[in-house]
Amino acid sequence: MRILFVNPNSTASMTAKIEAAALSVANPATEIIAVNPEETPASIEGHYDEALAVPPMLELFQGGFAAGSDAGVVACFDDPGLYAVRSITDRPVLGVCEAAMLTASIVASRFSVVTTLVRAVPVIEELAHRYGMAGKCRRVRAANVPVLALETPGSGAQHRVQAEVERAVADDGAEAVLLGCVGMADLARTLTERVGVPVIDGVAAATRLAEALAGLGVRTSKVGGFGFPLAKAIVR
Amino acid sequence: MRILFVNPNSTASMTAKIEAAALSVANPATEIIAVNPEETPASIEGHYDEALAVPPMLELFQGGFAAGSDAGVVACFDDPGLYAVRSITDRPVLGVCEAAMLTASIVASRFSVVTTLVRAVPVIEELAHRYGMAGKCRRVRAANVPVLALETPGSGAQHRVQAEVERAVADDGAEAVLLGCVGMADLARTLTERVGVPVIDGVAAATRLAEALAGLGVRTSKVGGFGFPLAKAIVR
Amino acid sequence: MRILFVNPNSTASMTAKIEAAALSVANPATEIIAVNPEETPASIEGHYDEALAVPPMLELFQGGFAAGSDAGVVACFDDPGLYAVRSITDRPVLGVCEAAMLTASIVASRFSVVTTLVRAVPVIEELAHRYGMAGKCRRVRAANVPVLALETPGSGAQHRVQAEVERAVADDGAEAVLLGCVGMADLARTLTERVGVPVIDGVAAATRLAEALAGLGVRTSKVGGFGFPLAKAIVR
Amino acid sequence: MRILFVNPNSTASMTAKIEAAALSVANPATEIIAVNPEETPASIEGHYDEALAVPPMLELFQGGFAAGSDAGVVACFDDPGLYAVRSITDRPVLGVCEAAMLTASIVASRFSVVTTLVRAVPVIEELAHRYGMAGKCRRVRAANVPVLALETPGSGAQHRVQAEVERAVADDGAEAVLLGCVGMADLARTLTERVGVPVIDGVAAATRLAEALAGLGVRTSKVGGFGFPLAKAIVR
Amino acid sequence: MRILFVNPNSTASMTAKIEAAALSVANPATEIIAVNPEETPASIEGHYDEALAVPPMLELFQGGFAAGSDAGVVACFDDPGLYAVRSITDRPVLGVCEAAMLTASIVASRFSVVTTLVRAVPVIEELAHRYGMAGKCRRVRAANVPVLALETPGSGAQHRVQAEVERAVADDGAEAVLLGCVGMADLARTLTERVGVPVIDGVAAATRLAEALAGLGVRTSKVGGFGFPLAKAIVR
Amino acid sequence: MRILFVNPNSTASMTAKIEAAALSVANPATEIIAVNPEETPASIEGHYDEALAVPPMLELFQGGFAAGSDAGVVACFDDPGLYAVRSITDRPVLGVCEAAMLTASIVASRFSVVTTLVRAVPVIEELAHRYGMAGKCRRVRAANVPVLALETPGSGAQHRVQAEVERAVADDGAEAVLLGCVGMADLARTLTERVGVPVIDGVAAATRLAEALAGLGVRTSKVGGFGFPLAKAIVR
Repeated sequence: MRILFVNPNSTASMTAKIEAAALSVANPATEIIAVNPEETPASIEGHYDEALAVPPMLELFQGGFAAGSDAGVVACFDDPGLYAVRSITDRPVLGVCEAAMLTASIVASRFSVVTTLVRAVPVIEELAHRYGMAGKCRRVRAANVPVLALETPGSGAQHRVQAEVERAVADDGAEAVLLGCVGMADLARTLTERVGVPVIDGVAAATRLAEALAGLGVRTSKVGGFGFPLAKAIVR
Repeated sequence: MRILFVNPNSTASMTAKIEAAALSVANPATEIIAVNPEETPASIEGHYDEALAVPPMLELFQGGFAAGSDAGVVACFDDPGLYAVRSITDRPVLGVCEAAMLTASIVASRFSVVTTLVRAVPVIEELAHRYGMAGKCRRVRAANVPVLALETPGSGAQHRVQAEVERAVADDGAEAVLLGCVGMADLARTLTERVGVPVIDGVAAATRLAEALAGLGVRTSKVGGFGFPLAKAIVR
Repeated sequence: MRILFVNPNSTASMTAKIEAAALSVANPATEIIAVNPEETPASIEGHYDEALAVPPMLELFQGGFAAGSDAGVVACFDDPGLYAVRSITDRPVLGVCEAAMLTASIVASRFSVVTTLVRAVPVIEELAHRYGMAGKCRRVRAANVPVLALETPGSGAQHRVQAEVERAVADDGAEAVLLGCVGMADLARTLTERVGVPVIDGVAAATRLAEALAGLGVRTSKVGGFGFPLAKAIVR
Repeated sequence: MRILFVNPNSTASMTAKIEAAALSVANPATEIIAVNPEETPASIEGHYDEALAVPPMLELFQGGFAAGSDAGVVACFDDPGLYAVRSITDRPVLGVCEAAMLTASIVASRFSVVTTLVRAVPVIEELAHRYGMAGKCRRVRAANVPVLALETPGSGAQHRVQAEVERAVADDGAEAVLLGCVGMADLARTLTERVGVPVIDGVAAATRLAEALAGLGVRTSKVGGFGFPLAKAIVR
Repeated sequence: MRILFVNPNSTASMTAKIEAAALSVANPATEIIAVNPEETPASIEGHYDEALAVPPMLELFQGGFAAGSDAGVVACFDDPGLYAVRSITDRPVLGVCEAAMLTASIVASRFSVVTTLVRAVPVIEELAHRYGMAGKCRRVRAANVPVLALETPGSGAQHRVQAEVERAVADDGAEAVLLGCVGMADLARTLTERVGVPVIDGVAAATRLAEALAGLGVRTSKVGGFGFPLAKAIVR
Repeated sequence: MRILFVNPNSTASMTAKIEAAALSVANPATEIIAVNPEETPASIEGHYDEALAVPPMLELFQGGFAAGSDAGVVACFDDPGLYAVRSITDRPVLGVCEAAMLTASIVASRFSVVTTLVRAVPVIEELAHRYGMAGKCRRVRAANVPVLALETPGSGAQHRVQAEVERAVADDGAEAVLLGCVGMADLARTLTERVGVPVIDGVAAATRLAEALAGLGVRTSKVGGFGFPLAKAIVR
C-alpha cells in the first residue's frame, strides 16, 4: 500500500519531518511518499498562503494518484484544498487536522488544539465545525510562534508550544491536546509523557487512518460534493 | 466609489452579465468594474474548479485594489477564495452567496436556494453554515442544469430554474428564493414577479452591500483570521 | 430615498445622536428622519421596557411608511419589535444590532459586543442566535453603565466602555467590537483608532444597509412570518 | 395556590376555553383565574398582533401578581411577552408553547406541532429554538385555519387540525403532537385517543407546570435577563 | 398519587436524603417511595458505575410500576438509564438532572451546574445537550469532592460546593445554579439564601414535575424511541 | 495485534457474521476475537435491551483487555455502553456506529443510515449528534425489519434493506449509506456495487479504525470523562 503525503508549502525540512512522523507509525508494508511543491509559500499562515499552495499541491496529488497511490494526505494542519483533492480521485483522502480531530474524538471526550499564530485560530475553529468536532473542542490556542520557528533550533518555539499545551490541560479541561501544525509532529511523544494526556500529531494520525481506509476498500463518493471535475468546453 | 467584481471563471459572457446586474442597481456615482481571468475553468462546478480559479482571481483583486478599488466582490455563488481576498486588503470584500443570504435574512424569515448541479448543494449548505444562515435556509435545490447552459439560448435552463424556484415556494415554505449561480442574475426580476416572493440575485445584492460597507468606512480587520499575508523567507 | 429611524425610547438626546450618526455616513441624497415616541420609557433596559415601547414605536413607523419612507430602522440595540415592524410594511426594515452584526460578519471572523448592563447580555446573545451570528460572537460584555449615563457628561461612562472594548480585543480574540447601545454611537470612530480593530456602531451600519436594500428594490416577503396583519372581526 | 392565566387576545370564548382546560387538570386546591384584556386583537396571528397585545396583558399580570397570584401563564401559543412578564415578578411564569414543549420532551423523543396559519410556523420554530427543543421538534405544521375558525362551529377547523395531526404521526415520525393554538385545547383528549400518541395541549401542560414550580418555591432569578424593571428618571 | 424514586447507587443515607428532599416539596397527598438496589456501586462516578447500576435499578422500577406507581424518577444527577426506564412503562419518568435543567430554564435565562468530580463534567454537558439546555448552560463546574464526602460530616465538602456555587454566580453570569449531585439536595435552600439566585436541587424539582405530569395524565409515547421492550425468541 | 469485538446480544450467528466481516478487511497480522455474552437479549432493539446487555458485555471486555487485547469494538450499531468500555481501559475502543460515521465523513459530504426498526431512529440520531455527525447525516431510515429477521433466510429482510438504501440515494441526496445494524454486515459489498455509492458496514470500518488507533499508540485519556472506575468503599 502506498500513501502520498503532500506538504503544500515549499519547506523541505518540514516534508522530511512529515515523512519521519508517518514512517514512525506506518505498517512496515506501507510505502510512504512525502513531497512538496517548489513554488509555494515557505509556510502556510493564513488563507492567502493556502490559496496559492493548493493548485501546485493538486498537481502533485494528480501525479501521485496516476502513479498508483492508494490514499492521500494533505499534510498541513489547515487542511487546505482537502475537498479539491477528494474531487480528483476516488481513493480516500485525509487532512491532518481532520485525522487528528477524529482520532481525538475516539480517545477523549474533550480536547484543545495548540497552533502557531493567532490568525490560525478561526481557521481551525471552522475546521472543527466542518468535521463535526466543535462540540468536543474546548479551545484553539495559539502559541505565538511562526511556523518556521519550529524548524529553527534555538528559537524557543518548542518551549512555547509546551507551555501552551500545559495550559490547555490545566485550564481548558482538555483530555487530549492536538498539535496544530505539522512542524510540531516531532513533539507529540515527549509531550504526551510530560503532560499525561494524549498529545496528538495529525501526521501520524492521518497515516494510520489512511492505511485504515485504503485497506477497507472504501472509495470517495463521486455522486455529490466530491464528484470528478467536469470537462469544460472553453467558452469565452 | 469603485467596486471590483472578479468572476473567477473565464467565461466573458458571464462577466458581462455580472456587470449588467451590478449596474442595474448601483448608485449612479459608483463605478463598476467586472473582470475575469483568462486561464481559469470556463465555469466553477465543484471544489477542483474553485481551487484552480482562486490564484488568478487573487491577482486580479490585488491589481484592482492597488489601482484604488474601494470594495471587492467574488462573483461566483460558491464564493471561492473569499477569505483569501479578505486577507490581501483592508477594503470590504463580499461573496455573492454571502450577500444574497444576508439580504434574504433581512426580508424573509426562511429562504431556499436554487443552484445548478447537485454537486453544488453541499458546497452551498456549508456556506450557509459559515455565514450563520443554516437555520434560515430551508433547502438548497439543484435545477440540474450545467452552469454554461445558462449562457446558451434554447438550452431550456431557464425553465428548469423557474420550475425549481416554484417548488421552493410551494414545498419548502421558502419566503424568498436565492438564485444560486451568477449565470441566473438576469432572471431575478421576472421570477420575483412570477412567484410572488423575493427572488434574490447575489450579484445585485453584493453590489449594494459593497457600496454600503465602503461608504460606511469600515475596514476588514487585520488582527485575526484576515491578517495580511506574512512575508516569507525562502527556507528549503 | 428616505430612511426612517425610530428610537423606541423617549429620550430626545439619544434621537439626536442617532440622527447625527446616520447623517455622518448616509449618501448625500438620502433623507434621514429620526423620531421617538413621547410616552415610552426613557431608556430600554430589559424586556419590560421593550414591551412598552413597541406599540408607540409601531405607530410612528406606520405613519412614516404611509408618508413614503423607503426603509425603516429600529434604533435600539435590543431591536425591540423588529419583526412586528417588518409585518406592517413591504419596505426593508433593519435593527441596529442586526445591522452591526451582519456588518461585523463581513469584516471580521470573530467579534465581541460591549453593552451597558448585565441584564442586556442574554438579550443580545439571543439576538446573535436569531441573526445566525452566535458562532462568530465571542462574547457579549457589559460595561456596567446605565443607558442614560451615556447621555450625562462626567458620568465616566465612556471610560468604562472604552476599557471593556479593550478587554474584548485583548482577552476574547475579538477582531471587531460592536457598541451595544445606540447611546455609544458617537464613540465608534475614536475607539476604532484607539484599539486598532473595527469598532462598529449599529446606527451607522443600519443606515448604509437600509440604503443598500432600499436601492436594491428588494421587498419584505409577505407570504410567511412577516405577512401583513390580518383584519380582525371583533369577536367577544 | 392561585394561578393567573392571561389570554392576550380579546376573545372571551377562548378565555373560557383556557379556564376549562386548566380546571380539567388542576389540583382541586388550585384556584384558576383566566382573564383577557378588552382592547387587544381578537386573535394573535403574527408579530404585529403580539406586539399590540403585550402591554395590556402586562397590566393584567401586574394586577394579578399584586393581588397574590402564585404563578402566571401567558395563554397564547406564540408566548408573546413571556420574558417581559418574567421581568415584573419573581413568581414563576410560563408560556403555553414552552409548557407543551417541555412536557413533550419528557414523554417523547421527537414531536411535531400543528398550528393554525403558515405565518405562525417560523414563530414557533424560533420558540422551539429558544426553549432548546429544536432538536426534538420534527416539524411545525400549519392546518391552514384562522384562529377564530376554531371558535366557530361548522367551520371545519377541527377536521383540518385532526388531519394535520395524523400526518404528523404518519409522515414526521412524531411520537407526540403539540396543539399549536390555545383554541385547540379542547381537542387534545379526543385526538390522543384517535392517533395513539400523546396529543398535548399547552394550557393543561402549563397549569400543571405552574403548580409544580409554585409549589417548589423556586423564584424567577432577578440578577440577569429577567431583572425587575428599573425606575426611570424622565430625561428628554 | 405515588411517585417512585430509585437511587441507583447502594448508599442508603443518600436514599434517605432523596426521600427527605422529595417530601419537603411534595403535595401532602403524594406518596413518596425512595429505594435503592443493594448490589450497585456505593456512588455513581462515571460511565462504568452507571452501567452497573442500571439493571438493578430497572428491576426496582419494574416492581414499582407493577405495584402502581404513577411516575418514576431516576435519582442520580447523571440520569443513568433514564431512557431505558421510559421504555418499560407508559407512566411519566424523569431524571433529576433533566428536572433541574427544565426548571432552571423557566426561572433563569442562563445557569451553571456545580457537580462533584471533573469526570462528571462531560457527562453533564452531554445531558445538557440531550435536554436542549446547552445554550442556557453557562458552565458545568466540579467542586472536586467525591460523592460520598457529601455524606461525611467534617469532610469540608459543603464548603467546597458553596465556594464553587459562588464562583458560578460571580464569574459565569449564572442566574441560577444547579446542584449536580443528589447528595447536595440538602444544601439548596441555604445556598439560595446565601447567593441570592435560585440554587436548584434536582430531586425537589423532579418531585414537582413528576406530580405535574402524572396529574396531567400524559403518557410516555410508545410508538418510537421509548417503545416497550420486544419479546425475544432465544436464538443462539 | 489483537482486536476484541463484543457483540452485546446473545445471538451467536451474529457474532459469527461480525467475525467474518472483521476478518474480511483486517490486516493478516491482526488477530480478531469475536464473542458474545450468553445471558443478554437475543437482539438489541431499544434502550431496555441495551441496558441489560451492557454489564455482561463489560465483563467480556474486562477479561479480554486483561488477556492482552490491543483495542476493543462494541459490535452493535446502537453502540451501547461504549463510554463505559472506554472507562475500563486505556486501549482505544470504538463503536461500530461511530466507526461507520467517521469513515463516511471522510469519503462523502452527506450520508444516510438504514437501520432496522423505527425505534432505533432517534437512538441513531442521538449518536450522530454525539459523534459530531448530525450535520452530515441526511436521514436515519428504518427498513422495518426486526434484527433477527436478518438472520433468517427467506425473511425478505435483505430486499427491504436494499429498497431503503436505494431510497436514501435517490431521495436524500446521500453520497454514502450506512448499514445501521451489524446483522447487515454481509450486504455492504453487494449494495455498494448495486447503488453506486459507498455502502458502509460499521464492523469492517471499526476493524480498520481499531487497527489504526492501536498501531498509532494513542491511549484513551484517563483524566476526564473516561477515567478509570474509582474504588468504592461500601457505605450503607
